[in-house]
Amino acid sequence: MREDDFLEWIRSRGVSQPKRVPVGPGDDCAVVGLGGERLVLTTDQLLCGVHFTEDIEPRLVGRKAMNRGLSDVAAMAAVPVCAVATLAAPPDFPRESAEGVYTGLREAGDAFDCPLVGGDVAGWKGPLALSVTVAAAPGSTGWVLRSGAKVGDAVCVTGSFGGAWKGRRHLEFTPRIAEAKALAENYRLHSMIDVSDALSLDLWRICRSSGVGAELFASAVPVSDEVPAGDDAERLSAALGDGEDYELLFTLCEADANRLIEDNPLDVPVARVGRIIAEQNLALVDPDGGRRPATPTGWEHEL
Amino acid sequence: MREDDFLEWIRSRGVSQPKRVPVGPGDDCAVVGLGGERLVLTTDQLLCGVHFTEDIEPRLVGRKAMNRGLSDVAAMAAVPVCAVATLAAPPDFPRESAEGVYTGLREAGDAFDCPLVGGDVAGWKGPLALSVTVAAAPGSTGWVLRSGAKVGDAVCVTGSFGGAWKGRRHLEFTPRIAEAKALAENYRLHSMIDVSDALSLDLWRICRSSGVGAELFASAVPVSDEVPAGDDAERLSAALGDGEDYELLFTLCEADANRLIEDNPLDVPVARVGRIIAEQNLALVDPDGGRRPATPTGWEHEL
Repeated sequence: MREDDFLEWIRSRGVSQPKRVPVGPGDDCAVVGLGGERLVLTTDQLLCGVHFTEDIEPRLVGRKAMNRGLSDVAAMAAVPVCAVATLAAPPDFPRESAEGVYTGLREAGDAFDCPLVGGDVAGWKGPLALSVTVAAAPGSTGWVLRSGAKVGDAVCVTGSFGGAWKGRRHLEFTPRIAEAKALAENYRLHSMIDVSDALSLDLWRICRSSGVGAELFASAVPVSDEVPAGDDAERLSAALGDGEDYELLFTLCEADANRLIEDNPLDVPVARVGRIIAEQNLALVDPDGGRRPATPTGWEHEL
Repeated sequence: MREDDFLEWIRSRGVSQPKRVPVGPGDDCAVVGLGGERLVLTTDQLLCGVHFTEDIEPRLVGRKAMNRGLSDVAAMAAVPVCAVATLAAPPDFPRESAEGVYTGLREAGDAFDCPLVGGDVAGWKGPLALSVTVAAAPGSTGWVLRSGAKVGDAVCVTGSFGGAWKGRRHLEFTPRIAEAKALAENYRLHSMIDVSDALSLDLWRICRSSGVGAELFASAVPVSDEVPAGDDAERLSAALGDGEDYELLFTLCEADANRLIEDNPLDVPVARVGRIIAEQNLALVDPDGGRRPATPTGWEHEL
């Protein structure tokens, strides 16, 4: 079975206590009432052989696990509050490695005022596995969902794409917490997601949640330096399909996008890479106006 | 390395942002400020080969994963708000099994008004692994820690102990959310923990956190019907060391304990099984007054 099919089934089951749950399964985080406040909550796992390889140093494993959770919080333009983590350790896992994982988790959380406040550790016969849950609070302008993209919106991204897994970027990225906050406070964001599985696949998720489609401007997609030089089509394909970029992908009206591109207040580059259309599909538009269907590709788990 | 040693090391590192974190690592849940509210947060994992065996039906696996989290919330006398979960599925994990796990998670949460609001699924080469994070709010009387036991306190428990793993009780227990609420509202609880790893080990954790010791009354410990009939010493040893009971273990002053035992308002039996002492060790007291050191035994993970 495919991950997205199973997640679609889960979404179709709805959520219990919907009055207390403004945002349930299907977005980067859930939003839930807690007394007079709103709690933004996300959980993610980091599995050996899937999200990292055995040779990666434990500190970077811990760091990536925390930063993935923080990246989901950024995708809602929310403010991190605290995190908890679990660690399932393989046989003979050295104490120094466990300490390394802890140190990485904590460093990454501390960098965004997100203290590690609890967790669970156990030994088992399986490979190294972590899970991290980040609790957050809505930003001053509320939260941004995947489902708000409107026909005519500009599709924009932070940073560049492709080659993250072969390089070190998937281990050393900075979650875009500060950028998401600045964007949400200065522009009316209609929708947002963090690009973990791949630019084309995550854009397609925004489209599906919003009931729209998108055109991608082939020549406008920022390709990372980590993608090997060579054929343009191959480089574009890496940018659209590699995944693990942990950049922000968001949509906003043309006027706001113009303002953003002209006077980018962020410390990272921003690019306008496409446009939201009514037709519910994904298309690639070449500089000469040529237009072809694009298949959303990327990291989709087989279960 | 031993789990408790590593956890002790983690506690020794302190917590970042201590002003925002009234309760950090080292108790059943953390407590963190979220705007004007307090968030109670706990995370736990459920690993194939450790917490369940491969033959257990997926619905019960999901149920146990959620109920373990809820049991931690009960240990703080807190009120569940919502939960998120992760699932790492082994190769060729059937869709029906994934749905079964989901159904068990959701049923168990719904029974305590704790909606499942999000999660993460991935396939990998390892065995089935789940993690569940439960977010909760403090009860009307605040929260109860492990560290508040006082010399002279009575040690009390709900339910009975031993044999849970061999029987079905570790899969089908009811987290003591309602009982913890009733106890906290009617008595001044000084300390509390849920007995997951074993009565003697979890009592010892209360002692260590509180800087005290405890006497256990050998003949007062309620032994579960799931412990095979036979030698009294063997049955007691099963009750003290088997674990997976998910009952409440708590301390309160003698007067409150007398009131509780005389007029138990709970739907489950309550027993007074011991007394907090100043000497920092654990002792077993026989009906004839004989006294011997007790070793805290139970489920402690080797990492």
